[in-house]
Amino acid sequence: MRILVQKFGGTSVADIDRLNMVREKVMAALDRGYKVVVVLSARAGKTNKLLAQAARWADEPDPAEVDSLLSTGEQASVTLFSMLLKGHGIKARSVLGWQIPITTDDAFGSARIHSIDGDHLRRMLETYDVLVVAGFQGVTEDGRITTLGRGGSDTSAVALAAALGSCECEIYTDVDGVYTTDPNLCSTARKLDRICYDEMLEMASMGAKVLQIRSVEFAKKYNVPVHVRSTFNNNPGTMVVQEDPAMEAVLVSGIAYDKDQALISLTGVPDRPGISATLFTPLAKEGIVVDMIIQTASRNGRADMAFTVPRKSLEKTVKLMESLHDIIDNQGIETSAKVSKVSVIGVGMRNHTGVASKAFDALSKENINILMISTSEIKISCLIEEKYTELAVSTLHDVFELGK
Amino acid sequence: MRILVQKFGGTSVADIDRLNMVREKVMAALDRGYKVVVVLSARAGKTNKLLAQAARWADEPDPAEVDSLLSTGEQASVTLFSMLLKGHGIKARSVLGWQIPITTDDAFGSARIHSIDGDHLRRMLETYDVLVVAGFQGVTEDGRITTLGRGGSDTSAVALAAALGSCECEIYTDVDGVYTTDPNLCSTARKLDRICYDEMLEMASMGAKVLQIRSVEFAKKYNVPVHVRSTFNNNPGTMVVQEDPAMEAVLVSGIAYDKDQALISLTGVPDRPGISATLFTPLAKEGIVVDMIIQTASRNGRADMAFTVPRKSLEKTVKLMESLHDIIDNQGIETSAKVSKVSVIGVGMRNHTGVASKAFDALSKENINILMISTSEIKISCLIEEKYTELAVSTLHDVFELGK
Repeated sequence: MRILVQKFGGTSVADIDRLNMVREKVMAALDRGYKVVVVLSARAGKTNKLLAQAARWADEPDPAEVDSLLSTGEQASVTLFSMLLKGHGIKARSVLGWQIPITTDDAFGSARIHSIDGDHLRRMLETYDVLVVAGFQGVTEDGRITTLGRGGSDTSAVALAAALGSCECEIYTDVDGVYTTDPNLCSTARKLDRICYDEMLEMASMGAKVLQIRSVEFAKKYNVPVHVRSTFNNNPGTMVVQEDPAMEAVLVSGIAYDKDQALISLTGVPDRPGISATLFTPLAKEGIVVDMIIQTASRNGRADMAFTVPRKSLEKTVKLMESLHDIIDNQGIETSAKVSKVSVIGVGMRNHTGVASKAFDALSKENINILMISTSEIKISCLIEEKYTELAVSTLHDVFELGK
Repeated sequence: MRILVQKFGGTSVADIDRLNMVREKVMAALDRGYKVVVVLSARAGKTNKLLAQAARWADEPDPAEVDSLLSTGEQASVTLFSMLLKGHGIKARSVLGWQIPITTDDAFGSARIHSIDGDHLRRMLETYDVLVVAGFQGVTEDGRITTLGRGGSDTSAVALAAALGSCECEIYTDVDGVYTTDPNLCSTARKLDRICYDEMLEMASMGAKVLQIRSVEFAKKYNVPVHVRSTFNNNPGTMVVQEDPAMEAVLVSGIAYDKDQALISLTGVPDRPGISATLFTPLAKEGIVVDMIIQTASRNGRADMAFTVPRKSLEKTVKLMESLHDIIDNQGIETSAKVSKVSVIGVGMRNHTGVASKAFDALSKENINILMISTSEIKISCLIEEKYTELAVSTLHDVFELGK
């Protein structure tokens, strides 16, 4: 039995015209001899609408109830699409998370998948040619509905592909694939034919929104090839796959950016052991995600510390820092919400030197000041003033010849 | 553990104001020391909206998919109401049909309950003070969602009360209880304090829409006292209970009517054995519910046969009769969609004579022609021209002194 997993997002299930496009993709796969597992999201906007509804009913709606409410969005998508398929003579049925089951932990709102009963799905595929599975949802061991967090349908699709030993997981979206950078920002952006999981992870975490990060982690863990492609044409998209030697020949694969950054600088922090823990433990407890961190060299026993957080967390972070002032004993606090992070990404840089200096040089030639730098094996990130984002992206895109 | 089941219909869950009224009913029951099982319907109009949506997706939507789609209506009601209760500090959670489970057969759209895991619910009630259960829905043995048919939430509530050994099942509605007849038709209609199951069954099947018939059958079978009362005040409503000797002292309990009747008369049908089967078996196969049937005495080897069906089935029935013409060999066919059925109901008439003649006499005095008569132990029904419905109802209501 050859099984293909196809996932379609919220804009693809918005109306009958769109879903007839989806139906054609499914029928084409059937024609190619596959049994198809279709994973659908809720209609675009539906999840937000349900969340707004919940907010009217309680100040802090119970997360378990919210998840059960949200799951109705996907339930509507899969039942309606199954009707459509059956109306076209296709042996199809809808399958909800608990019907498989896709068991998860009980972290309502951002649950993690524990297991998927792939054997049950395979038995169903003996009766049906198409299973239309509700994305984004799972069920706890004791039978309560959970959701996997924003974009969780990508994770559902990849996890199903892994559980089924599917040859490939197609993620249909409203873009043609993964680009060397954001085409809205840089006219020479080019679609990539292939990208490896690690690069995709860096791209995804930097705001390249075609795939949810967790789905890429899942794909990497179970080595599921993911084909990111468009619902609206038949062009080949981008294959997200395991790294292979050919990829390392390419120095840089893409330029990503993230405008959701805010900078907090604490000046004159006493340079003593444990100060970092004093600072960052309370932030972690409040669920504030710290991204970049730098600490200057100590002068007269005091140093400056700077770090970035998502912009929505800025206010809360500042309050927290102020409340810790007596303990930290810093001399001042400075903030900026107008910063962004620009990153050069590529597995090839593992084996090449000079990528960082080339990037810094290019930015410097454009008079773009670098506020912070952080590097990993396959990524160099620079924090800059937000107004230079577009310029920095296209400069880096050009200097690494990504448009060619 | 004292458990009370309270069921609220679609108009009671329409908005937050209404659901705060529901919340007050629930909290009053908690104050009286009960654990409460609240059964909710979908918001008024929601089920119709979803059905209309399904109709846009397929000419004949798959019934299993339709049920899974429809069940989202109740799922939204119970999750939102649970949030509301939790927001008021009440230990509450939502429970879907499959989470209990309420197992049913696989007659999607009108499934019948096989069993309810009352022990599971009792265990949940050790943790929670209120369980908010989705009405109208169940699940097949192999895990597909079913619905119980229109008004099925009443049945859910009574079945839950039976499974839990609840002392009473309160059905909240937008009327004060069960009336001697339709107050909109007859100004002297009076609310009944008590009515027995059999009378309620006859009233319900005749269009007294306060309770779904199947729920009354269930209540009778398991001897669950049902209290029909209003969401919008605290007045005692009508208790639907087992028959007791005191009830038989009352000759007639109510007058019901049903305008959803159409009459088909076949004239000159050969009077030979098996003719009824020839006629009615095909109707049953098409799912057409025949109500009243009469056959005139045979004359010259031919008789007239007349029967009634729901109005929506008239056209289909006539076509079927025409297609059977060569087999039935009837001389003609006459129809009328403008008829209605008026019924006098009361367990007391079992032990009294003269109820029928009194009814016929009263109608005759008003010059209302009786087209057909059917009787049971506790009911006399007359088919009349629809335009006389109001007159017939108030005449019968008066002659049996029900307004007093």
